[in-house]
Amino acid sequence: MKTNPGRFFEDYRLGEVIAHAVPRTLSGGERALYHALYPARHALCSSDPFAQSCGLPASPLDDLAAFHTVFGKTVPDISLNAIANLGYAEGRWLLPVYPGDTLRAESTVIGLKENSSGASGVVYVRTRGFNQDGAPVLEYVRWVMVKKGRPDAPAPAAVVPQLASVVVPEALVIPEGLDFTRYDFALAGGERHRWGDYTVGEQIDHVDGVTVEEAEHMLATRLWQNTAKVHFDATVRPDGKRLIYGGHIISLARALSFNGLANAQMIVALNAGAHANPCFAGDTVRAWSEVLDRAETPAPGVGAVRLRLVATRGEAFALRGADGRYLPEVLLDLDYWALMPL
Amino acid sequence: MKTNPGRFFEDYRLGEVIAHAVPRTLSGGERALYHALYPARHALCSSDPFAQSCGLPASPLDDLAAFHTVFGKTVPDISLNAIANLGYAEGRWLLPVYPGDTLRAESTVIGLKENSSGASGVVYVRTRGFNQDGAPVLEYVRWVMVKKGRPDAPAPAAVVPQLASVVVPEALVIPEGLDFTRYDFALAGGERHRWGDYTVGEQIDHVDGVTVEEAEHMLATRLWQNTAKVHFDATVRPDGKRLIYGGHIISLARALSFNGLANAQMIVALNAGAHANPCFAGDTVRAWSEVLDRAETPAPGVGAVRLRLVATRGEAFALRGADGRYLPEVLLDLDYWALMPL
Amino acid sequence: MKTNPGRFFEDYRLGEVIAHAVPRTLSGGERALYHALYPARHALCSSDPFAQSCGLPASPLDDLAAFHTVFGKTVPDISLNAIANLGYAEGRWLLPVYPGDTLRAESTVIGLKENSSGASGVVYVRTRGFNQDGAPVLEYVRWVMVKKGRPDAPAPAAVVPQLASVVVPEALVIPEGLDFTRYDFALAGGERHRWGDYTVGEQIDHVDGVTVEEAEHMLATRLWQNTAKVHFDATVRPDGKRLIYGGHIISLARALSFNGLANAQMIVALNAGAHANPCFAGDTVRAWSEVLDRAETPAPGVGAVRLRLVATRGEAFALRGADGRYLPEVLLDLDYWALMPL
Repeated sequence: MKTNPGRFFEDYRLGEVIAHAVPRTLSGGERALYHALYPARHALCSSDPFAQSCGLPASPLDDLAAFHTVFGKTVPDISLNAIANLGYAEGRWLLPVYPGDTLRAESTVIGLKENSSGASGVVYVRTRGFNQDGAPVLEYVRWVMVKKGRPDAPAPAAVVPQLASVVVPEALVIPEGLDFTRYDFALAGGERHRWGDYTVGEQIDHVDGVTVEEAEHMLATRLWQNTAKVHFDATVRPDGKRLIYGGHIISLARALSFNGLANAQMIVALNAGAHANPCFAGDTVRAWSEVLDRAETPAPGVGAVRLRLVATRGEAFALRGADGRYLPEVLLDLDYWALMPL
Repeated sequence: MKTNPGRFFEDYRLGEVIAHAVPRTLSGGERALYHALYPARHALCSSDPFAQSCGLPASPLDDLAAFHTVFGKTVPDISLNAIANLGYAEGRWLLPVYPGDTLRAESTVIGLKENSSGASGVVYVRTRGFNQDGAPVLEYVRWVMVKKGRPDAPAPAAVVPQLASVVVPEALVIPEGLDFTRYDFALAGGERHRWGDYTVGEQIDHVDGVTVEEAEHMLATRLWQNTAKVHFDATVRPDGKRLIYGGHIISLARALSFNGLANAQMIVALNAGAHANPCFAGDTVRAWSEVLDRAETPAPGVGAVRLRLVATRGEAFALRGADGRYLPEVLLDLDYWALMPL
Repeated sequence: MKTNPGRFFEDYRLGEVIAHAVPRTLSGGERALYHALYPARHALCSSDPFAQSCGLPASPLDDLAAFHTVFGKTVPDISLNAIANLGYAEGRWLLPVYPGDTLRAESTVIGLKENSSGASGVVYVRTRGFNQDGAPVLEYVRWVMVKKGRPDAPAPAAVVPQLASVVVPEALVIPEGLDFTRYDFALAGGERHRWGDYTVGEQIDHVDGVTVEEAEHMLATRLWQNTAKVHFDATVRPDGKRLIYGGHIISLARALSFNGLANAQMIVALNAGAHANPCFAGDTVRAWSEVLDRAETPAPGVGAVRLRLVATRGEAFALRGADGRYLPEVLLDLDYWALMPL
């Protein structure tokens, strides 16, 4: 058979390194599309002169555009037969990505655990994205539940990696040259709130909502060369619905968070993430954030803020029910570090 | 509160200058998207060699792409709480915008008048867009009806600016170097009609129609970082409809006008404009034009033509009823100056 | 009348050369949009370093993006009043197209034959696309059935050109410098199948499907400045449906064929093609291929494979019924040559 059936649980070996295919050169085209697909307005990823005033050589692509590009490369090898995308940890952005850069990706299998049913198992991978110079641009751990191809395939020895519950501030990588000492708050979004104005426990309703269309999420998902069938083919699910790529919701929520977090300019770490419930076309997506922590950084004028970003269908400030489970209107619960001016 | 509630009528002061946030670097990506979103075919904004044969250094972005970018910057400060976009005047394009340019915008409050109801008022602003060198690229006056935040806020002294009903030909700014003496009519669109072939009072039915989709107008509106809720959130209006950004209809009608006005290459002034009725997804938009005036310019081979551009839902040549009011099928009535080869 | 009514059958003269209007400069924006509109993953058109490792100066635009750009230019002159797009032959790609290139097109009328009804006729044109240096980038013959404008217009002498049923391997133009001797199969798509692994008669089900949306096909068709009304205006057809541009299905099927033909990197010839049945939004498009022939080429490490690419609505491996006619679920039957690593 010439086509790629995808890997099943028994096809993964602990320690195996998978080089993902189809490197991708990004340009101003991907940047323009990112702005057309999401209400993204963070000035550092919108304006070359603004980025230069912050010490960068030019305006980088949105951090999530780099993430989606790398993630998309992994889909044919990691999640083509996935039942669920279970979690993220230890994600770090290591180098900004600029128009003209070419990204490729590789993943190392760091954990395997068959489910008690014997029909599937959990695969843990540490994925790294590299640019054309071979320099790593980001890394993250992801674990997915993958079907077994042969029910009688023997279970591997269970190995569940020890994963940090949060990237410690000392491990955050600040882009070389980044300097917020001359940060222009008026140009950046007109919000005067700086790092010191956010307090741990504070919650922000980002107010705006976007009703999602099929054409939009498919354009976005294809842009990252993500090929998972459920996003494109309305005949796959019994209900005739196309499941929206979870990364689409991440980008949508992050862009909506500009209203209240206009100065949270760069994402530097992904501590954790859960796609709590599926999203479908027609849903109106809203977002709220909670400040989880704050930390200083060695870069001039630059502070780090740890945020919980929650995307919801409709209702604001929903999260978990009395039973501790995500409420049905919660789409995303993301825990990340961003950089802000002091 | 960390989020931007937008300004209310009582928040504006006469003479105040508002620097709008989030400068934007434009690239070939925005140009490609402009061509994907609108049936735009004017050769000057499509081909570098064609633009060079007309004396420009390269093909500029569509004049309306520059307009929308600047307009989008103003939305969070001017029209987030607007009830209606009432009019435009004294609009002039001052410098072509090329891929690689970065635009920012500022607005001066030039008029304020509370409505007799006391619940809202009209705000007049003169908006200017600037490139990365601080050179103005366009300017226009816009007036909007804005809600009051506090009904008891005192009414400011009413000041209604004197606005020119039309930009006089002497005030039109012709891009430096523009020269239509070697204009290639075959390459430009195959229409042989030049400036002298259009007569005042002449009406042109642009024939073609486009049925508009939700995903398209949202992609376009986001591309210009326009954040007005009514365009994106289907839950805002009681009827569950998303209002299409008026600028989307301007660009759609202008692009449709290629068929009959293929040689009206550049927009240099916006004399007036009214978004006569709202447009919603599913509407089929058509356009017709009327020649309002003609003028010579100092540039070699270049004439100016003043056009009324009308976008309609369905029916052609609709404008006003016996009562002088716009007919319900009229979406847009725009009055502008364009440049054509003599 | 200022607008373009399009040409009718009686307006064409044998031997006439029609220079098509509106040259188009392509950029990274068109490339990004191509990847957003189609699940395109062939590495040569995705990554500059990959293309350079194959001897090219950079990653060219997808061969079909060049084709659609040239095709789009011809629509206002050739197919505005077309009843049907009947066929393609003798298509060859002559030079890769890179971001920054500007394409224009011209067509020569090489055949004319009035239909027996006297109401229409078949027009055969040989179309060539040229870049900014005047170098031809591709050529193909297309024939379309065109309405007569005046039923009493006299029939021209019938001339039906002799067209090759297939481009012979010796006539294939291999891009200068192309060298697959160091081809990286892992980076290219992870499929290990090379030229020698495909056998004549072999059929490949490309597995994946895409459910098509109105916004997507209109964005794509506009991107190529194709203006045919039926693709955009829901009021044109009595059934209220917008006909999807046949080229959209070609690109969709070609992109889907990556799964099984990841190493068929470049299209170099179009032997024949039929848009067997119309496609509408909501249809789920699938694709399968059949290996028709193989040939060696003079380029190092490069083989040519002749493929039949069939797009279907739903059902796989459908083609013709017992009566020899295309089955109703067949959308496209395309015969082309592609280049693969030996």
